[in-house]
Amino acid sequence: MHNSSSFAIPSAGYSVTVTVKIPNIIGKFALLLSKVAELGGSIAEVELVSSDFQSTIRKITINAKSTESAQEIMKHFGKFDFVQILTWQDDTLKMHEGGKLITQPKVKIRNSDELSRAYTPGVARVCQLIHEFPEQAYQYTIKNDCVAVITDGTAVLGLGDIGPAAAMPVMEGKAVLFKEFAGVNSFPICLDTKDTEEIIKTVIYLAPTFGAINLEDISAPRCFEIEERLIEALDIPVFHDDQHGTAVVVLAGVYNALKVLDRKLEDLKIVVNGFGAGGVACIKILLEAGAKNIIACDTSGIAYRGRTKGMNPMKEELVKVTNPENISGTLGDALVGADMFLGLSQPGVVTREMISTMNKNPLIFTLANPVPEIFPDEIADIAGVIATGRSDYPNQVNNVLCFPGIIKGAMLCRARKITMGMKLAAARAIADSIAPDQLNKYLIIPNVFNPMVASKVTEAVMQQAKIDGVSRI
Amino acid sequence: MHNSSSFAIPSAGYSVTVTVKIPNIIGKFALLLSKVAELGGSIAEVELVSSDFQSTIRKITINAKSTESAQEIMKHFGKFDFVQILTWQDDTLKMHEGGKLITQPKVKIRNSDELSRAYTPGVARVCQLIHEFPEQAYQYTIKNDCVAVITDGTAVLGLGDIGPAAAMPVMEGKAVLFKEFAGVNSFPICLDTKDTEEIIKTVIYLAPTFGAINLEDISAPRCFEIEERLIEALDIPVFHDDQHGTAVVVLAGVYNALKVLDRKLEDLKIVVNGFGAGGVACIKILLEAGAKNIIACDTSGIAYRGRTKGMNPMKEELVKVTNPENISGTLGDALVGADMFLGLSQPGVVTREMISTMNKNPLIFTLANPVPEIFPDEIADIAGVIATGRSDYPNQVNNVLCFPGIIKGAMLCRARKITMGMKLAAARAIADSIAPDQLNKYLIIPNVFNPMVASKVTEAVMQQAKIDGVSRI
Repeated sequence: MHNSSSFAIPSAGYSVTVTVKIPNIIGKFALLLSKVAELGGSIAEVELVSSDFQSTIRKITINAKSTESAQEIMKHFGKFDFVQILTWQDDTLKMHEGGKLITQPKVKIRNSDELSRAYTPGVARVCQLIHEFPEQAYQYTIKNDCVAVITDGTAVLGLGDIGPAAAMPVMEGKAVLFKEFAGVNSFPICLDTKDTEEIIKTVIYLAPTFGAINLEDISAPRCFEIEERLIEALDIPVFHDDQHGTAVVVLAGVYNALKVLDRKLEDLKIVVNGFGAGGVACIKILLEAGAKNIIACDTSGIAYRGRTKGMNPMKEELVKVTNPENISGTLGDALVGADMFLGLSQPGVVTREMISTMNKNPLIFTLANPVPEIFPDEIADIAGVIATGRSDYPNQVNNVLCFPGIIKGAMLCRARKITMGMKLAAARAIADSIAPDQLNKYLIIPNVFNPMVASKVTEAVMQQAKIDGVSRI
Repeated sequence: MHNSSSFAIPSAGYSVTVTVKIPNIIGKFALLLSKVAELGGSIAEVELVSSDFQSTIRKITINAKSTESAQEIMKHFGKFDFVQILTWQDDTLKMHEGGKLITQPKVKIRNSDELSRAYTPGVARVCQLIHEFPEQAYQYTIKNDCVAVITDGTAVLGLGDIGPAAAMPVMEGKAVLFKEFAGVNSFPICLDTKDTEEIIKTVIYLAPTFGAINLEDISAPRCFEIEERLIEALDIPVFHDDQHGTAVVVLAGVYNALKVLDRKLEDLKIVVNGFGAGGVACIKILLEAGAKNIIACDTSGIAYRGRTKGMNPMKEELVKVTNPENISGTLGDALVGADMFLGLSQPGVVTREMISTMNKNPLIFTLANPVPEIFPDEIADIAGVIATGRSDYPNQVNNVLCFPGIIKGAMLCRARKITMGMKLAAARAIADSIAPDQLNKYLIIPNVFNPMVASKVTEAVMQQAKIDGVSRI
C-alpha cells in the first residue's frame, strides 16, 4: 500500500545541519552515517570544519522525511557516547528567521542636496507631475514594477484556513520567487478579513501603489468572484495564481505530451477531478485550447446538468460546457475509455485498476501534493506520460514556471488585464522552452530552474497583449 | 517686502545637470557662469568630462530657485552661439525614475533544496508554527522589522489633496528615509479612499503583515480619529508622523532653547498658531512636558471656551486645557507679552511689529514651509532663538530626526503602542544629541545628518517602553 509516510522521501524542507566532534577511530563516522540511513534520512552535505590528532569536527546537513524524523535522528546522535554535538539548526527555520524579504532604497541620501531631491522640496514637483498626468505614475513610482501578493490566508498550501499571520511565510516566499525568477519587485500583504466584499474593496484601495495584483491561496469558490470583480474594477492586471498559474503549466505539459504521443487535444476524452481553483481554471483553459470532451468530477462524482448535490455557481456554469453526453456516475465510471486524467484533488483517489480502464497510453496529471492521486511508479508501464506536483518525479507542474514571467510581461507592457490569449501564449512559451529533439515522456515540462522559461514567457505575453489590444505601450 | 519668490534660494530640488561643449577661449566659460548667477542660479558641481586642443566638455549641475528658473537658465544657455549643449537632465526627476524603492530577497533560491526550504514543502512548517504560536510571526516573518507608510493623499506636503497616485513619490521617499536613517524596512501604501471608516478598516486588514504603521499626510481633523481608533484596534504601534514627529522635534528644540536662554517651560506664555495635525500634537506634548500657559490661534484668531466660529471636536477638547484666562482676540493680541511663538500655519502671518510686542528674547518657531510665518533675518536682533522648517537656516525642525528612531525603538521592543512617555524620551534624546558645550542659539536642533540621533532615539524609546509597560521583549 502507498500512503503519505511510506512514500515520503527525505527533503531539504526537513533538513537539519549539525556540527559534531568525533574521535578519529576508524568506523565511527560511518556508524553515524549508517544510523542516518537506518532512520530514513539522507546526507546532503558534509563539510570538514577542523581536524586534529584526536578528533574531527564536521558540519553535516541531513535531509529528513519529516520534522519528527529529523528529531529522531538528532535524538539518536545524542545517544552515541563518542559523538559530541557542538551546534545544530533546523535549516528551514533558519532560512526564514527575521523574514525573507527586505526593502531597499534605489537612491542614496547622503547630504542635504540628495535629501531635497528625494524628499522635500524636490519631490513635490514629481507629485504635481503625476497629479496632472496620472500615467506618469508608471514613470516615477514603483507602480512601474511592483506586484502585490495578496491573500486572506484561507487556503494556504495544503494547510487550509490558517489565517493571515501564518500565511506570511508563503507570501514572502512568493515575493522572493518573483524577484529571483523574473527580477520583479513584489510585496506580500496578508489581509485580516475573509469577507469577499471587504477583500475586494481593500484590494481596490491598495491598487494605486502597485503595477499588478497576484491573488494567492484564497479559498474556492470565493476566489472566483474576488478575481472576476477585481479584474472588472481595476485597470492593472489581477492574476489568481492558484487558478491560472496551474492551468498554464498544465496546458504547457499537455501541449508537449500531445507532441510526444502524436495526438490532438480535440480528440481526447479528458477527466478532471477537483473543482477547486486549479481544477476550474484547467477546465477553462483546456476548453479554450480546443478540448471538446471534458468530464469534471468532484467528491460527489461526475458533474452533470441536473445534478443537485454539492453544486455551486461555478460548477453550474461549467457543466453547461463540459460533459457533452451529460453522463453521470463515479470518477471510476468517467475514466473508462478516457485519454487523459487530470487530478487536482486528494491523495490516493485513483487506483491502477481505474487507470487500466482508460484508453491506451493515457496522459496522467496526478497533481495532489505532496501525495498525489496515484504514484507514478504504480502506473509507469501503462501510462503514456505522467506529470506530478513533486520535484522528485519527472514533469513537475510548478507555478513558478508561469507567474514570474506572465506578470512581468503584463507589467512591462502595462496591460490592463491578462487575457485568455496571454495565458495560452504563456503555456506555448513554457512548452517551447524544451527543444523538440529533447522532448520525451519524461521531459514534457521544463525544469523550474530552466533559465529560459521566464524570459520566453515574458516576451510571448507582451506580444499577445499587443494583439489582444490590452497593451498600453 | 518679503514674499515667496524674492526669498527663495537656489535648491538641489530644482537642479539641472547639463553637459556642454565650449571652445577654449578665455572668458567663455566665465560668461556662462555669470549668466547662471544673473538668473538666480547657483553652480553646485562642475565635472571636467574631456578636453582637447579646441574645446572642453564639462558637466555642470546648477541649482535653481524653481522649475521656471531652471528652464530660463537652459533657454539662455541655448542662446549663446559658442555653447553646444550635449545632454541635460532634471536631476530630481532623474532620481525618481522607476520609483525609489525595490524589494530584495534575503535568501537565495539557486537549486531545488533552497526552493524547498524557502517555499513548499519546507515553508509549511513555518506557517504551522506561526498558526500555533502567533508571536512567532515576529521570529519568522518581515513583521519583525517592516513599517507601512500609509496615506490617502489628502494632505501631501504643501500640495493638499492630490490623491493616492500622486502621493506615492512622498511615501516612497519616506520609506527610503526609514531605511537610510535607521535601517528599518518600510513599504509605502497609498489608499484610494478618503472615507475615515474605510481607511480604518483597511489598515486593520493590512496589519498582520507589518510591525508598525506610520500614517502620513492625512488631512486634519480626520487624521486624529483615524490614528486614535487604530491605536485602540491594533497591538502594533501606530504613529501619525505629521503630528508626533513634528511635536517631538519641536519639543527637542524647546528643551535646548530653554537651556540656552536659561528659562523654564512652565514659566513661558506660548502662542501656537495653526490647528492642523502638527499644531495639535505640539500643544499636547508641550502641556505634557510642563507648559502651563498656551494660547492656540487659527484663522479665526484666539481659540477660547465659548467660541463658535470654526471649531471642531479637537479644538473643543484643546480649549479646555489651554488659554487659562480664556482671552479672545487676534493672533497679534495673543502675542503681546508672550515668550514663545510656534507657527505651523501660513507664510507671512506674523510681522516684526507683532514679534516686538513679545517679552524679551522670545523663542520663535516659524515652521510654515518653504515660506515661514516670518523670515529669521527680519527678527534676528530681537529673537532669543529662531527655528524654521528650512534646511538653509539654523535649527531646522525636520521629522527625520524623530520617525526613524522612534519607530525602530518601538518595533525592536515590540511595543504595543507609542506612549506619550516614549515621545518625551525621544525629544530628550534628540535634544541631548547636541553636547552641552556646543549648544548655542544657532544650534538647538541637531543637523538631520547627525549620525547619533537615530540610535539615541531608538535606545531611549526602548527604555521608556519598558518603564511604561508596553514593551513585549
